[in-house]
Amino acid sequence: MAVELGVEKPDPLGVSPAQRRSAELEGLIERDPRRFRVLTGDRPTGPLHLGHYFGTLRNRVRLQGRGLEMFIVIADYQVLTDRDVAENPREHVEGLVLDYLAAGIDPARATIFAHSAVPALNQLLLPFLSLISVAELSRNPTVKDEIAHSRQSAVSGLMFTYPAHQAADVLFCKANLVPVGQDQLPHLELTRTIARRFNERYGTAPASPFPEPDALLSAAPLLLGTDGTKMSKSRGNAIALAADADETARLVRRTVTDGDRHIAYDPANRPAVSSLVLLAALCLDRDPHLVAADIGDRGAAALKATVTEAVNEHLAPIRARRAEYAADRAYLREVLREGNERARAVADSTLDEVRAAMRM
Amino acid sequence: MAVELGVEKPDPLGVSPAQRRSAELEGLIERDPRRFRVLTGDRPTGPLHLGHYFGTLRNRVRLQGRGLEMFIVIADYQVLTDRDVAENPREHVEGLVLDYLAAGIDPARATIFAHSAVPALNQLLLPFLSLISVAELSRNPTVKDEIAHSRQSAVSGLMFTYPAHQAADVLFCKANLVPVGQDQLPHLELTRTIARRFNERYGTAPASPFPEPDALLSAAPLLLGTDGTKMSKSRGNAIALAADADETARLVRRTVTDGDRHIAYDPANRPAVSSLVLLAALCLDRDPHLVAADIGDRGAAALKATVTEAVNEHLAPIRARRAEYAADRAYLREVLREGNERARAVADSTLDEVRAAMRM
Repeated sequence: MAVELGVEKPDPLGVSPAQRRSAELEGLIERDPRRFRVLTGDRPTGPLHLGHYFGTLRNRVRLQGRGLEMFIVIADYQVLTDRDVAENPREHVEGLVLDYLAAGIDPARATIFAHSAVPALNQLLLPFLSLISVAELSRNPTVKDEIAHSRQSAVSGLMFTYPAHQAADVLFCKANLVPVGQDQLPHLELTRTIARRFNERYGTAPASPFPEPDALLSAAPLLLGTDGTKMSKSRGNAIALAADADETARLVRRTVTDGDRHIAYDPANRPAVSSLVLLAALCLDRDPHLVAADIGDRGAAALKATVTEAVNEHLAPIRARRAEYAADRAYLREVLREGNERARAVADSTLDEVRAAMRM
Repeated sequence: MAVELGVEKPDPLGVSPAQRRSAELEGLIERDPRRFRVLTGDRPTGPLHLGHYFGTLRNRVRLQGRGLEMFIVIADYQVLTDRDVAENPREHVEGLVLDYLAAGIDPARATIFAHSAVPALNQLLLPFLSLISVAELSRNPTVKDEIAHSRQSAVSGLMFTYPAHQAADVLFCKANLVPVGQDQLPHLELTRTIARRFNERYGTAPASPFPEPDALLSAAPLLLGTDGTKMSKSRGNAIALAADADETARLVRRTVTDGDRHIAYDPANRPAVSSLVLLAALCLDRDPHLVAADIGDRGAAALKATVTEAVNEHLAPIRARRAEYAADRAYLREVLREGNERARAVADSTLDEVRAAMRM
């Protein structure tokens, strides 16, 4: 099944091909988890928050629990595209490792590594860039967006070539499964294109060809921040995984709601209240409608008390682990060092295959 | 002195700023050769010919003789942009080493290395790409040309980002002098821009900043091929350095000339004859007008005899060395291995500085 770049045709029931494929993949994961290698990762721009946790982190822990092999890239070079570039990337990198371990990622099973620590990975960029055209890079929605909203001169060469960097991140370890949100589908499609073209152009025997990695669409719940807009670190409206119980209570208390004392789960018409209901439901692993019904007419204060308790209870073991690991920076560095080493070995081996295929 | 990108304002005598700066640099080279580190190189697309030899190779040997330190990159990854990509890049790479040694490059003084053997070099690409915009990359005359003459879809991501790759090639070894032709000036200007912006943005203490490398314009003589168009491997009209005396005689004999028995050096009006006169003059280290005057009315046959003798005599020691080295492939590989190792050590050290400056 080929998902055309940026073109998604839903069937009559409104299910897109990517969604259909993801459902299929979940079945395959259930039956044969060992056929999958997952690539996932984050940019080290600051502490992870509840949006990240319920959006991706929890899903990674689930996939790890299923027995899938996983590579987690900390994209420390990609943050160079940010205007608000982190002042202390090293600390942010260690902070991410801390959040991963706290959430339940097991470094004995998952390879956590920093992009910058695996130089061979970047050597894939040159052949990969040769396999895609400027026209294809220009069709990247993120780039189109940036050009539409600012000016072409604001798009850096790094941002423009991002899909090739992502292809290197994914293909260096021959990952065949990439959990993504809807907006990332066009990027991953270009990774698939690069893999296919490389295999076609250079052949691969006796080495194994690049897989065309599948997108595993994760239904990231839309969690709003304390100000009622999308939860985002840069907006200062997020509840960090690392926040303690008191801070969580304070942040939930000041979250905007509406004037209706009757609490209901109705995201379209009552986004702020519904986001709080959803957050509690996620923490309690319950249906949000039932959570809302339990609160009924007791108003926003009762809702917030429910949310605070649910979040603090759900996160308690995560926060306990986080505090434990935070006291042992040497261990965090060791995790990263070992992950970097594993990733480097994999990258070197892939690069050897690539160079042999290209007869260099 | 800043040469604006693609904007060259000649003074009233017709001397461009780049030419003025190059003359200045020749003076500095004479007085203090040890302040310069040169980066130069070739794409391994086939045997070097007389155009390469008199255009760049001889100049490199001259600079080496002056005592300048030199890095010579064999851009084996860049040939990926070619449609007519070499079928056997490894053989072409060794062929280049052979041509270098034959021409007089001394591997004890110059570092000859293959781009693909220095992975750390490519890691500079990411920060460098972040420092230039898509608009700046689009102004590259080569890219503009390709888009004008074919379609945007024909421009690969690799070709588009070429100036950033060149910046990595030049800056990884902190070269401060790059011998180039006029057409390469805009590329080098982008390398200077990248160096400047990196230094400004990341500071560099205690490591040394990137130099803003100077272009050393070499007055490449316009040598025509046997068919009267520019000598070029891809046109099949070139006399290779590796050609023997008989082949040279045959190629010179079939070179187009004109009907005028009087031989003169007049490139504007008699390009074919003048190119042959120039070739002899270059080999004999004489003024082309004097070479032409010596032949006078004896016509094209006499000119061609002069050219053949001059070329064969000039190239005799080069060809003898070439045959010697050609018999010892193990030595060629050893030269490349040592060069690669030296380049890798330099690249690793630069990368360490870059990462420290960026606080990674």
